[in-house]
Amino acid sequence: MILDRIKRPNDIKNIPSDEYDDLAQEIREFLINKISVTGGHLGSNLGAVELTMALHLVSDLPKDKIIWDVGHQSYTHKLLTGRQAGFETLRKYGGMSGFPKRKESLCDSFDTGHSSTSVSAGLGLVKARDLNGEDFAVYAVIGDGALTGGMAYEALNNAARLDTNYVIILNDNNMSIAENVGGMSKYLRKIRTAEAYKDFKIGLENTLNKIRGGEQLVDTLKRYKSGVKQLVVPGMFFEDMGITYLGPVDGHDIKAMVRMLREARKLPKCVLVHVITKKGKGYLPAERHPARFHGAEPFEIATGLPVKKRKKANYTDIFSTVMCKMGARNDKVVAVTAAMPDGTGLKRFSNMYHDRFFDVGIAEEHAVTFAAGLAAGGLRPIVAVYSSFLQRAYDQILHDVCIQNLPVVFAIDRAGLVGADGETHQGIFDISYLSSIPNMTIMAPKNKWELSDMLKFAVKFDSPIAIRYPRGEAYDGLEEFRAPVSFGKCEVIYEENDIALFALGSMVRSAEEVRTELKDRGYPCSLVNARFAKPVDEDVIREMCEGHSLIVTMEENVQSGGYGEKVRDYIFEHKLDCDVLIIALPDDYIEHGNVDLLKKEVGIDTETIVKRIITQYISWGNKHRKDTKVHEFAVPKSLMQEETV
Amino acid sequence: MILDRIKRPNDIKNIPSDEYDDLAQEIREFLINKISVTGGHLGSNLGAVELTMALHLVSDLPKDKIIWDVGHQSYTHKLLTGRQAGFETLRKYGGMSGFPKRKESLCDSFDTGHSSTSVSAGLGLVKARDLNGEDFAVYAVIGDGALTGGMAYEALNNAARLDTNYVIILNDNNMSIAENVGGMSKYLRKIRTAEAYKDFKIGLENTLNKIRGGEQLVDTLKRYKSGVKQLVVPGMFFEDMGITYLGPVDGHDIKAMVRMLREARKLPKCVLVHVITKKGKGYLPAERHPARFHGAEPFEIATGLPVKKRKKANYTDIFSTVMCKMGARNDKVVAVTAAMPDGTGLKRFSNMYHDRFFDVGIAEEHAVTFAAGLAAGGLRPIVAVYSSFLQRAYDQILHDVCIQNLPVVFAIDRAGLVGADGETHQGIFDISYLSSIPNMTIMAPKNKWELSDMLKFAVKFDSPIAIRYPRGEAYDGLEEFRAPVSFGKCEVIYEENDIALFALGSMVRSAEEVRTELKDRGYPCSLVNARFAKPVDEDVIREMCEGHSLIVTMEENVQSGGYGEKVRDYIFEHKLDCDVLIIALPDDYIEHGNVDLLKKEVGIDTETIVKRIITQYISWGNKHRKDTKVHEFAVPKSLMQEETV
Repeated sequence: MILDRIKRPNDIKNIPSDEYDDLAQEIREFLINKISVTGGHLGSNLGAVELTMALHLVSDLPKDKIIWDVGHQSYTHKLLTGRQAGFETLRKYGGMSGFPKRKESLCDSFDTGHSSTSVSAGLGLVKARDLNGEDFAVYAVIGDGALTGGMAYEALNNAARLDTNYVIILNDNNMSIAENVGGMSKYLRKIRTAEAYKDFKIGLENTLNKIRGGEQLVDTLKRYKSGVKQLVVPGMFFEDMGITYLGPVDGHDIKAMVRMLREARKLPKCVLVHVITKKGKGYLPAERHPARFHGAEPFEIATGLPVKKRKKANYTDIFSTVMCKMGARNDKVVAVTAAMPDGTGLKRFSNMYHDRFFDVGIAEEHAVTFAAGLAAGGLRPIVAVYSSFLQRAYDQILHDVCIQNLPVVFAIDRAGLVGADGETHQGIFDISYLSSIPNMTIMAPKNKWELSDMLKFAVKFDSPIAIRYPRGEAYDGLEEFRAPVSFGKCEVIYEENDIALFALGSMVRSAEEVRTELKDRGYPCSLVNARFAKPVDEDVIREMCEGHSLIVTMEENVQSGGYGEKVRDYIFEHKLDCDVLIIALPDDYIEHGNVDLLKKEVGIDTETIVKRIITQYISWGNKHRKDTKVHEFAVPKSLMQEETV
Repeated sequence: MILDRIKRPNDIKNIPSDEYDDLAQEIREFLINKISVTGGHLGSNLGAVELTMALHLVSDLPKDKIIWDVGHQSYTHKLLTGRQAGFETLRKYGGMSGFPKRKESLCDSFDTGHSSTSVSAGLGLVKARDLNGEDFAVYAVIGDGALTGGMAYEALNNAARLDTNYVIILNDNNMSIAENVGGMSKYLRKIRTAEAYKDFKIGLENTLNKIRGGEQLVDTLKRYKSGVKQLVVPGMFFEDMGITYLGPVDGHDIKAMVRMLREARKLPKCVLVHVITKKGKGYLPAERHPARFHGAEPFEIATGLPVKKRKKANYTDIFSTVMCKMGARNDKVVAVTAAMPDGTGLKRFSNMYHDRFFDVGIAEEHAVTFAAGLAAGGLRPIVAVYSSFLQRAYDQILHDVCIQNLPVVFAIDRAGLVGADGETHQGIFDISYLSSIPNMTIMAPKNKWELSDMLKFAVKFDSPIAIRYPRGEAYDGLEEFRAPVSFGKCEVIYEENDIALFALGSMVRSAEEVRTELKDRGYPCSLVNARFAKPVDEDVIREMCEGHSLIVTMEENVQSGGYGEKVRDYIFEHKLDCDVLIIALPDDYIEHGNVDLLKKEVGIDTETIVKRIITQYISWGNKHRKDTKVHEFAVPKSLMQEETV
């Protein structure tokens, strides 16, 4: 194995060039083998094998800096910097991250995870280098998908002013996760095929050669350099900004890339090297199904099919189904996503209601303000975005949607712990950042039917409203409890005495387990499905404070600014005689790993919650124990909504 | 007066075209007269007089929709839609807003305030129009400054795909508030002068006419349409994306603009009309000092000089001075601003340390991640941004700075109520949105010396840290209290008994007044300068809970997720026997008006606070009154930092 000769950074330089192709092949096999077992990002990594090799061949690591935009394409980089063994524990708790991490290696020069940050970060490193009087190369590797994100453009706009070397590599595979969108994408496609330009150049030269006086014209053209460039250089868009464009170059031709990167490094300015790659390159199932192999579950290599067949629907599936139904019933319903038609479950809606579906690219800011415009125009937009990506649009939510109190629905998928993707992707801040925005309402469903009910409630609601739901399998328990969704109202599921669990969204399921455990140990307790994180249901809190001495709030969000603090604050402010225990996430980032392990680690697993409740109850609640009344409260069948998902 | 004939929308169409220039002149005089008295945005409005007239001439309002990016240039629009009388109360409490407001007029189709939103919002209106089967024009008017913001590019990227009419008007004055920056700006300048292109076209045509076979070349050129366009059309950047470019046109030539707008409206796609205007046009002081007349205080028309001379330094001045000092002492100190070198006070720093100053344009997202890169490269970046604009970079703070725990200093100016600019500009959310971000520290100074001390503390601090300070005059009282700034620690100013005021930043001054009032009425109380909104000083809270029965927190931020909730939560969680009253802003947007009036309105003026404290104290504190000890606690002179600002 050639790969075994690579133990540490820069070892690739000792590999003879005639072995490059074999090494690339070995890397591909290694990645396919490992990821088929652990799961992980496959397509983007297979596409970037040769590009990464070329970059390592021209670099001196860790002196030189490579910044991987988004970062999920950094597996080959990890391999070539001596982290082969890490792939055994890839994306596992305590194991190697699936993204670049400065704490993992000196060769990871900047942590990434969200899209379109690399050019900004790299520009910072360039300026720091020059001010510190140092000399090293900075390479920002950005995909064409990430180029639909506005901050990449902001960064290019600034990089254009450089009078020092900075190399931006455009890794162009005509894809973000789904197919790429927008004017820029169209433009790159034109360059990629390059026919218009090539033909034009050849045609012009032929014409000039044939005609008398052609030389004079060539002179004229040469005098007007910018004009000439437009005839012969495909990347005029970048040149117009002041960025030198080189390319396009075949992203699977190592020697060609090495030549071009060396040339790029010599120029005292910002250079964009346009590299054409193929997502999933070398593994047919990944080439054919790029969306599926973006972030893949463990799969069978021969067929590319997932090892585990999903049995139960996840929340995204429910969202998908309900959206199609709502689309049929109400032609004002429109859907907006930011490059995630598959991930958010809007693919089916997009097929059924093509005109009412908008994939705006990796552009959450635009997505939200665009939705505000749609709402101002009388439509009912549903913006489906992952929790951690919606962070990008905080100002647009506050400033463009909520000030005008426009009826935009935010369908926040991947809210809570997401697992293997780790700290950049955990959706654990949305309750906090949305709660302090005036005019905003926040809901979270306990199970799949409630997601359906909440969506239907939301599209009829006349103000901004968010529904957060977690990654993975949708809870299908507690189906007998389906009280109509009513603004700001909890759903009381079981009413017993002295301890009351107020659980939000995904935590209702945990609360049910906690309740069973507590009951077994002699502590019967009430269970309230919070439903609304904002506004909190003050009536039910007041009522519960009468029959209970301890209220336990449970949420999959950081405690700071979350649901529990609001409940506790209300009880304190109104001097209600009841203790409150908040079960929430700590004021910290949470790394990658299995969600159950992570929950244990941060103390929101059932066992820990039970222990914490008992401790708190004994230390306080017992002394303040109130009159007990034991009865179960359930919504009569007649009140339940008949319709199922 | 021609202007008097304009009473309602569309009245301008009854004005004969030979009176247009006189009307423009009247509007200019009206604006200068009014704004010289009320203050307001002058330069941008003087620049947009003819453009607005042209737009109104081709529009049918309110059926057609005009969206004013940022919105401070909408004064002529307000005039032409019958709001002449509103200028008497412009930006005054209860009066007319300085920005477009849907609640103010049907002709204001979308509220704006922050930059670069108009193209997104307009695209939403376009899609809504088509889906609703309606027919009206949508015009988004965006400045070249706003075009440095990434979300404008995200929107253009999406608008490029349209197969229906949408007119974007680029109001190009080569300015944002300060001079514009970046590659795009350079590109526009090139178009504006248009020499390269014009010369080239003429040169080419001459050449072709002179040579035999020239016609054949023209044929060749015509066959390659995109190539030909590059020879003759200046806006290839936009054309490359798929947006039809028209222009440039003189933004002070009404008839030319009307012609071009009519042509633009006919095309079934996204059209960008490039209009060249001059900021401050027609009023020499505003033409000469665009930054000063961006948002002007009342001024003397003859000289352009402010009516009131500022006597005392404001916080921005202090920041400015300290930055220059720190820059001299520490060559790792660098400064980043987003198009606000004057507003943030970094102009002097930029003059002294040109290489260490970065104005990135209206691009807060890039600013923050760029700063993260600078910090990763070993520098100490200070990012100076207004509170409400920093909202744009929430994800970048969380994801690019705080996950990596990089030492970036956020100098958050205009934190708290800002007054005349109103709801889009109030800086009242930063404590909430920053508090829930792990690794973040938040400070606020009580007076000008403390801002200086905090800045010096911050640049030596090894984690992300924010200092928030308000608009306007810097408090110069309490100068005898200058305990060294210590991480997470309050400064106890006066220690008495039973009631303790914990005031943050700007509210320390109010707290002092409140304390005097309360003392006069027989309620002596302690005064604590909170200093840190995160982390809260748990030691001092615990201590104070012993000698006091009521803690009053005071902050100029919304209550939800703010400082007071953290204090109250700590007291509840630890079952400390002390009541807490939170003085903060309500869960609502706060409109424009004099800050003192606004404070009264939302109940954080001294009088209201005193009343609320007494009420709360009597209803609760009195019953729980603790042993009293009366002494004053002051920091010994020896402990005070000697250095002054």
